[in-house]
Amino acid sequence: MSLLVAMTVWHVEDWRARFAALLPELPIVTLGEPFDRRAVHYVASWKHPEGSLAGLPNLAAIFSLGAGVDHIFADSRLPQVPIARVVDPDLTTRMSEYVVLHCLSQLRQLPRYMAQQRAGIWEDDRNQPAAREVRVGVMGLGELGLDAVAKLRVVGFDVAGWSRSPKVIEGVPTYSGEAGMAEFLARTDILVCLVPLTPETRGMLNRALFAGLARDGRLGGPVLINAGRGGLQVEADILASLAAGELKAAVLDVFETEPLPQESPLWTHPAVTVTPHNAAMSAPETVAAQVAAQIRRLEAGEPLEHIVDPARGY
Amino acid sequence: MSLLVAMTVWHVEDWRARFAALLPELPIVTLGEPFDRRAVHYVASWKHPEGSLAGLPNLAAIFSLGAGVDHIFADSRLPQVPIARVVDPDLTTRMSEYVVLHCLSQLRQLPRYMAQQRAGIWEDDRNQPAAREVRVGVMGLGELGLDAVAKLRVVGFDVAGWSRSPKVIEGVPTYSGEAGMAEFLARTDILVCLVPLTPETRGMLNRALFAGLARDGRLGGPVLINAGRGGLQVEADILASLAAGELKAAVLDVFETEPLPQESPLWTHPAVTVTPHNAAMSAPETVAAQVAAQIRRLEAGEPLEHIVDPARGY
Repeated sequence: MSLLVAMTVWHVEDWRARFAALLPELPIVTLGEPFDRRAVHYVASWKHPEGSLAGLPNLAAIFSLGAGVDHIFADSRLPQVPIARVVDPDLTTRMSEYVVLHCLSQLRQLPRYMAQQRAGIWEDDRNQPAAREVRVGVMGLGELGLDAVAKLRVVGFDVAGWSRSPKVIEGVPTYSGEAGMAEFLARTDILVCLVPLTPETRGMLNRALFAGLARDGRLGGPVLINAGRGGLQVEADILASLAAGELKAAVLDVFETEPLPQESPLWTHPAVTVTPHNAAMSAPETVAAQVAAQIRRLEAGEPLEHIVDPARGY
Repeated sequence: MSLLVAMTVWHVEDWRARFAALLPELPIVTLGEPFDRRAVHYVASWKHPEGSLAGLPNLAAIFSLGAGVDHIFADSRLPQVPIARVVDPDLTTRMSEYVVLHCLSQLRQLPRYMAQQRAGIWEDDRNQPAAREVRVGVMGLGELGLDAVAKLRVVGFDVAGWSRSPKVIEGVPTYSGEAGMAEFLARTDILVCLVPLTPETRGMLNRALFAGLARDGRLGGPVLINAGRGGLQVEADILASLAAGELKAAVLDVFETEPLPQESPLWTHPAVTVTPHNAAMSAPETVAAQVAAQIRRLEAGEPLEHIVDPARGY
């Protein structure tokens, strides 16, 4: 019996060492070496190569090494075994750090003031709105979205939420499904996208959606913050909407292709903030410990936790 | 009877217009024109020239056009009449926006990632600490400090407070006076300064104080955020402590001389963020309305609100 660590990015040897320390009795193998495919009971995956998990006859479970599992479902030859994701309370907190930081940075025009500093310009905006005058719309009301909503409210923003299925949050207007989308967008100055990437949500951040955002807000135009997945956004549409004034700014942590290619105009666009997909990283130690605990649960005959629903894709 | 609007900065005619609209029955005069000094009952001041309020025999009150009153006490020939400051709930909220923004910006290394974007570099820090691993020390626990403490805690920081006289805040370690300073500094990774400027606090943000800050924190060195008054800080000491590694970074909204002189090395220091004294600006309309309401109270025989204690200086 062995654990296969399967990944196309990150440092596979670091992960091997982490798992070896936590599960000394379990042989660890990787895709880059010969191994007995029948011995593999568990896979720890981060963007494993297409088809690399086929032909593992005794596979019992696949563990995603991150909160997202879209990278696993991207494999058309995925074995039909339970898939578990990581649920890391730190990851939720970190995502909210990022969301609150960038909502405040847009509210308080930090990119402008940092550019002014570089140019040696002392100039303020005496028409600065307060947070309560700016409407933030959080799209996706799972664990991440709910935490972001709560913290944005404390800081003072006027917050609403949208989710696929109806959710009730005390004191917060919520909208759901296709039917609620137009009304939600029409009251949104800063759109925070935290939805999972599924076939349904792929490309949803497009020009038609941006055109529905509020145009009467205090920021002088709507702002997009995407800290979900790059596949949710159509980058050509973000650029077109920025050019057309349908977006005033975009803060992007995720991209259609990562790392963001050097030739992308997003790098140098004055209204775009690019961060290297680091809005919410789990500490590798936390992730490895959670996967090890799950393997121990299975070995002890206990059920797996945090199982993904393949029908929903998250 | 008249209201004298006395200021060396800002647009005095805009203030005249605001007060004229709110107090149509009251003549408004300014320092730049001849006026009957005996008729002046009220002064609205923002950095009025030294001695310009002397020889106003019927003066009943001076209103500061901002939350701070140090600019008024700076006048050695100040008449001995009640001085009232502006208390604007929006101002408190805005200060906390600034404090939370810059604590998060330092935690999440936003200046680094913005510089990386300008250089086209995709690189993250997988050793990123979470907010709970970073100790913020808020110095000054008045209205501004208490609000900042509450919001920083919700975002996840490990927060403590220091004030001149002892304060109790549920769930937050607090320190006070000279006796409590060393212990407070020794557990502080990010120092947020929100104390009023008085003869006692002038220059308190100096190299000796910085040397007492925590050196064992997760940020790689202590960070200073001064959103109080420029007179609190010794800029030569900030630069010396940055050079010596006793400070890792500084976020400064206020300066010894404002606007910050072009030749100041703070403008171009890679570890310094400069903002143009806009951490917490009140909307002029809010301020004018509050001063007008105070004048109406006095005219109706009611007591003045928000009177400053000249002995404490705030």
